[in-house]
Amino acid sequence: MEMALKEARAAGDRGEVPIGAVVVIDGTAVSVSGNRTRELNDVTAHAEIAAIRMACEKLGQERLACADLYVTLEPCTMCAAAISFARIRRLYYGAEDPKGGAVDNGVRFYAQPTCHHAPEVYSGFNETEAADMLKAFFSGRRDTK
Amino acid sequence: MEMALKEARAAGDRGEVPIGAVVVIDGTAVSVSGNRTRELNDVTAHAEIAAIRMACEKLGQERLACADLYVTLEPCTMCAAAISFARIRRLYYGAEDPKGGAVDNGVRFYAQPTCHHAPEVYSGFNETEAADMLKAFFSGRRDTK
Repeated sequence: MEMALKEARAAGDRGEVPIGAVVVIDGTAVSVSGNRTRELNDVTAHAEIAAIRMACEKLGQERLACADLYVTLEPCTMCAAAISFARIRRLYYGAEDPKGGAVDNGVRFYAQPTCHHAPEVYSGFNETEAADMLKAFFSGRRDTK
Repeated sequence: MEMALKEARAAGDRGEVPIGAVVVIDGTAVSVSGNRTRELNDVTAHAEIAAIRMACEKLGQERLACADLYVTLEPCTMCAAAISFARIRRLYYGAEDPKGGAVDNGVRFYAQPTCHHAPEVYSGFNETEAADMLKAFFSGRRDTK
């Protein structure tokens, strides 16, 4: 989660929403990414999806059945579903996101009948730091407007 | 929708699940894609997301506020959310997907409080053809196993 937080900070420094994600297999970080939506002009380039795509590309496979994903914020609806499709084994996330989250908030995708693979979910890791980073980022943006 | 069906057929011919999508702005097709998950080893490369990414890249922008999306099958949870994030104006889809859809089935994302932009939705276009193509594809896969 320290690596994910570092990527979140780096994303914030680039003007992206500060969220970071790491894909880990057998104790090794296979891919690490921050949010890249602005950099790539790609609304789907959230940290989780960027990290999953990098891992799949690196490994030459479509699914990541033995992989765990660490992300600083509760995944949104799009990412929660992508994590399910990639067959991620365990999901570790930092802060909850009542406004946009889809794991323990919102559509609670992993508890739905249209979800065909649910990872084990663990939450609350470094949540204060992850949430404070987001608050500071959005507060900073408001101040400059 | 004819273009989307053509892309769906082409995807099926490549061994991909036969789904096709087209992004249209001012009556012009800006991007067209079939499902590309196998080709790219990318679980997020569903037809809708592939078409949205291509359109955003082409136009150099992160959102597609004036765009309409045509897709042969009801979008899944991941794609329904991506369509919302891209600010797509109108969504036209072919066949419903009770097992994996997220618009009129499943999590019905556009009716949820964590959905912050909902496109206008129109459905049932060429639905028999779209559904038959999928049925034939999966039936063919079962026969060869």
